Amino acid sequence: MTLRAPARQPLEGAALRAGLVRDGLLVETGVPGLVARTAAYEAVVSGIDHLVTEAFAHLAPGYLHFPPVLARTAFRRTGYLESFPDLMGSVHVFVGGDEEHRELLRRSGGDERWEEVLEPSQVVLVPAACHALYPLLAGRLPAGGAAYEVRADCFRHEPSDDPARLQSFRMHEVVVLGSPAQAEAHRAAGVELAVGLLEPLGLDVAVVPANDPFFGRAGKVLARGQRDEGLKVEVVTTITSGRSTAVASGNCHRDHFGSTFAIEQYDGSTAHSACVGFGVDRVSLALVSVHGTDLSGWPAGVRALLGL
Amino acid sequence: MTLRAPARQPLEGAALRAGLVRDGLLVETGVPGLVARTAAYEAVVSGIDHLVTEAFAHLAPGYLHFPPVLARTAFRRTGYLESFPDLMGSVHVFVGGDEEHRELLRRSGGDERWEEVLEPSQVVLVPAACHALYPLLAGRLPAGGAAYEVRADCFRHEPSDDPARLQSFRMHEVVVLGSPAQAEAHRAAGVELAVGLLEPLGLDVAVVPANDPFFGRAGKVLARGQRDEGLKVEVVTTITSGRSTAVASGNCHRDHFGSTFAIEQYDGSTAHSACVGFGVDRVSLALVSVHGTDLSGWPAGVRALLGL
Repeated sequence: MTLRAPARQPLEGAALRAGLVRDGLLVETGVPGLVARTAAYEAVVSGIDHLVTEAFAHLAPGYLHFPPVLARTAFRRTGYLESFPDLMGSVHVFVGGDEEHRELLRRSGGDERWEEVLEPSQVVLVPAACHALYPLLAGRLPAGGAAYEVRADCFRHEPSDDPARLQSFRMHEVVVLGSPAQAEAHRAAGVELAVGLLEPLGLDVAVVPANDPFFGRAGKVLARGQRDEGLKVEVVTTITSGRSTAVASGNCHRDHFGSTFAIEQYDGSTAHSACVGFGVDRVSLALVSVHGTDLSGWPAGVRALLGL
Repeated sequence: MTLRAPARQPLEGAALRAGLVRDGLLVETGVPGLVARTAAYEAVVSGIDHLVTEAFAHLAPGYLHFPPVLARTAFRRTGYLESFPDLMGSVHVFVGGDEEHRELLRRSGGDERWEEVLEPSQVVLVPAACHALYPLLAGRLPAGGAAYEVRADCFRHEPSDDPARLQSFRMHEVVVLGSPAQAEAHRAAGVELAVGLLEPLGLDVAVVPANDPFFGRAGKVLARGQRDEGLKVEVVTTITSGRSTAVASGNCHRDHFGSTFAIEQYDGSTAHSACVGFGVDRVSLALVSVHGTDLSGWPAGVRALLGL
């Protein structure tokens, strides 16, 4: 939205990743898109979380922090397996006795698949923070609708060398449920709030129409429909050179979650919902891309906003 | 260690759980041992994290916050599958195309195991924060050894109605690697620091010899050996009536992780390690058990220590 020179030219992915590790912000684990975070990096993450909470405090008092796994039965009802099977993570466990354990170790010691001895557990990894919320909301909403702030460690199976495409990352969202108009108004106002939060941090952002990465041949049709109907917008910026990356998004779900999880408006009709979500790790990485890996050298105003 | 009347009599598990939900600290998800946490509860968790960091700041500057999953190859080398197969969680993913997706949905729509279409991913859930650390440390330590503060969301598959036995929970540990004497000294001093941190919060704790829950028939022998050799102690308190629950522990690993992950002392011999770990959610629940679900009514000294 702003027109000005960035603080520095964005690096290529490999160079940014090397800098993050060299200057003590992240530690590589050997798995693409899986990093350990240092206290310095986490201070940035906390600062962003705090800004999001503050920006949306007028809507949702307090927040829910979900664990990184959610109920498999609820997950199955969200439609994720239909739309994004390639991104999800299913948690499997061992429920055998001594004999099955011997078999597990025999397979594991050889070159066989020990994982085939396992059984699906009651949980899967959380793919989006708000997906852990809807299953808890069956029932009738008040006349003004309801707003929830939610946080979760999310998992998406998309191994990549792009430092901004993590398999395990933090998502911070604000969800509104109510009438179609309430949901749409939240999306519109929330995206403006997101821009108003990100620009003072020095990020050069733009709001663009977008679609989710629906799977397969049928997914192409779904993606086009979502884009044509304006259901998703992304707040994008440049984290690594030559690439535009979403750091936040606004999504109208219509009555998808309302009808799936029996959430009703005050008048008994099916609730609509919309969410505005921040990829907190991506915002952090965008800030490093713009201001550098030495946090002590970040502009004083940015440091103050983040409480650094 | 202290001898005094607790602030209140501990409740039974079901009553404590009901109070936590009724008074807005936790939200049940329908899966035993899986709860969403409110901002009020998270303030207690943050307070405890801060106290642990402060208490061990002389050893480890900064900390590493691991994501909730770790590399499968590293996990396999820790020996967890041999000792605690029943507790682990393996992450499985979908890697097929359109045809396999149709099969996935056909199975899922019927009563068949759609999970059998999945493949093991590169990651498993983190079972203990320090297990994500050792694989990163191959190499030689300085003469004084090395200390690391680590945090992670951990998973253990032990569904239970006991509110203090979560499947997904936060662990905060301080690990020392070096000579056998350095490791043992850390365990001893660290457990004392843990007691010194927990008692001023109003918890009535005791340090007791303990063993890990090794699996199966062979596990009984391992557990007895661990206990006889004094390798594990737990800091226990009463969270629910009639039951003693560990809220922290001190563990000597001898050269188990050092030899597995090629971590050497300064003189080239295999490093020993020891960790002192806090179950941050259990400490939070213990505080609620003692001081009640109304955080505003907690003793002023306790609130001040936790930054509430």
